[in-house]
Amino acid sequence: MIAGDGIGPEVVAEGLKVLDAVLAGSDVDVATTPYELGAARWHATGETLTDADLEAIAKHEAILLGAIGDPGVPSGVLERGLLLKLRFAFDHFVNLRPSVLYPGVPTPLGNPGEVDFVVVREGTEGPYVGNGGALRVGTPAEIATEVSVNTAYGVERVVRDAFARAQARPRKKLTLVHKHNVLVHAGHLWRRQVEAVATEFPDVTVDYCHVDAATIYLVNDPARFDVIVTDNLFGDILTDLAAAITGGIGLAASGNINPTGEFPSMFEPVHGSAPDIAGQQKADPTATVLSVALLLEHLGLTEQAARIVRAVETDIAERAGSTATRTTSEIGDALAARVAG
Amino acid sequence: MIAGDGIGPEVVAEGLKVLDAVLAGSDVDVATTPYELGAARWHATGETLTDADLEAIAKHEAILLGAIGDPGVPSGVLERGLLLKLRFAFDHFVNLRPSVLYPGVPTPLGNPGEVDFVVVREGTEGPYVGNGGALRVGTPAEIATEVSVNTAYGVERVVRDAFARAQARPRKKLTLVHKHNVLVHAGHLWRRQVEAVATEFPDVTVDYCHVDAATIYLVNDPARFDVIVTDNLFGDILTDLAAAITGGIGLAASGNINPTGEFPSMFEPVHGSAPDIAGQQKADPTATVLSVALLLEHLGLTEQAARIVRAVETDIAERAGSTATRTTSEIGDALAARVAG
Ligand SMILES: CC(C)[C@H](C(=O)O)[C@@H](O)C(=O)O
Ligand SMILES: CC(C)[C@H](C(=O)O)[C@@H](O)C(=O)O
Repeated sequence: MIAGDGIGPEVVAEGLKVLDAVLAGSDVDVATTPYELGAARWHATGETLTDADLEAIAKHEAILLGAIGDPGVPSGVLERGLLLKLRFAFDHFVNLRPSVLYPGVPTPLGNPGEVDFVVVREGTEGPYVGNGGALRVGTPAEIATEVSVNTAYGVERVVRDAFARAQARPRKKLTLVHKHNVLVHAGHLWRRQVEAVATEFPDVTVDYCHVDAATIYLVNDPARFDVIVTDNLFGDILTDLAAAITGGIGLAASGNINPTGEFPSMFEPVHGSAPDIAGQQKADPTATVLSVALLLEHLGLTEQAARIVRAVETDIAERAGSTATRTTSEIGDALAARVAG
Repeated sequence: MIAGDGIGPEVVAEGLKVLDAVLAGSDVDVATTPYELGAARWHATGETLTDADLEAIAKHEAILLGAIGDPGVPSGVLERGLLLKLRFAFDHFVNLRPSVLYPGVPTPLGNPGEVDFVVVREGTEGPYVGNGGALRVGTPAEIATEVSVNTAYGVERVVRDAFARAQARPRKKLTLVHKHNVLVHAGHLWRRQVEAVATEFPDVTVDYCHVDAATIYLVNDPARFDVIVTDNLFGDILTDLAAAITGGIGLAASGNINPTGEFPSMFEPVHGSAPDIAGQQKADPTATVLSVALLLEHLGLTEQAARIVRAVETDIAERAGSTATRTTSEIGDALAARVAG
């Protein structure tokens, strides 16, 4: 458990509350080890994530992360040195981000239709690899580069995972999102991998759209999407937009998954640490609770995961009729009560 | 005039019709030279844009472009070999894309507020430079890279242009959009250039958001934006989304501007060639007509540009009340009639 910064500890507390409640009376035991990582540790020691941390965390079955980030830490330090380091070190090549518009949830769209898709964002390549650099920094002759690295190995495995997920869903539809008319080398690699893996999944319908067009569809016709597979950066952008149209990042859950099981997978809300409301019990813990559901599903506890999702659905439907605002822990209490067997 | 493919010739015809109408009776003369560039030429000769073409086009004062692209041409050939080649060869470093939600225009947003912003998208650097490559193509060991190149020279000039545009607008607000917490080298270069140029524009308010968060704001609170400055790829993505929320790409105009005047600037609708509706008089020429307004403004014909914008506004307001669909040339006729002095 990495609670992290800002609202992280508050939302993670509710995630664990619901986890305990849904497993109460079952034969599943949860042992949780808290790791003090994030801004406070960096301010105190200058450390983000040591080899010893990584080695210790690697022994766990799964990671629940709250949020990382603090305005007092220079941009990039905790993102690259902690969050992305975990994703890369544990080879989280499937960054799974479901988008469901639950009945009763306010959405900025006038007429959204039935939105239920999942983005499979590649998690270990693309422009996120950190293979950039800069020359003559601070002078008028400065040049800065960022290199997007894409390999057949890396693309094929995430594409295969996305196909399998599409095949397991009723609509069986996969949309590749890229920009192969401009980023021709990376784009054509992605395209060829999708074409190749498609032969293993003849019952899955395959579709393509450029990333710019995808943002149009996400606001004009989000119901068209079933499973989207895309690169690390496009996935980052599209999933924030997807969260916005399905009720906001207060509800958006994610899993950073290593499907081989070689390393622990990590589950986290899509939102950030929101320092402006930290410590005030104002954060919505629902995204973290839904991330706990993804964690349970990943561990094969499908029934318990489904119970959490149903609890959230009911809770959201009842919120819709009410004007009362609830504290972070009140929402957690309500969800915990609903999932209790 | 590069009419191009698909609906390109139809919408450009209406753009020229309105251009003639707005200049009729004035002392401004327009001489138009058509250049046959695009899919047909490529199919016939294998050429996209020759040095001779470039040299000839360079002699003009401005370029009006319809749309480029055809499903029969491999992805990237015309984009890189023609459209982007023009933008790069003529050093169109300001890719200007205004987003205005005109009264009466249908928008997918339930409650958009007053949307009136302009995106200044960098046009000659970033991941669009084509500095990528691939190794061992088609094998399981393939690696493909795309390099985003950013220079102090290139970023500073577009940032300064964006500040000047912000200063000339009532709200005087500039938002930098990037992803400096992950793309640290490029992102921090952009950030430092904005901080440096800001000292020349003390009356402009400066703001920053990550590209993922920007997509959230664009659907939840687009009214917050005034001028956005961003890189080539982020600008591509954000302006399609911006078009979607302000009535669709049928209305979105753009200018590829070389502010120094060393090369002709190029004006084009944001939409593509839409081969599915080509030749059927179904395309909305409004985006091209608004691109003609940007062209006139660039040439200093501000009054005529404003007349076109007012004509479009009135036309759109009247459309809103009607269920009749008009052909491409009927819309052009209506706009031409309105702008005639
Ligand atoms: C905080 C940041 C590094 C991260 C990302 O870009 O992946 C976040 O935006 C996300 O989507 O999880
Ligand atoms: C067609 C394509 C190369 C182009 C771009 O990516 O710039 C288009 O999407 C645009 O926005 O003008």
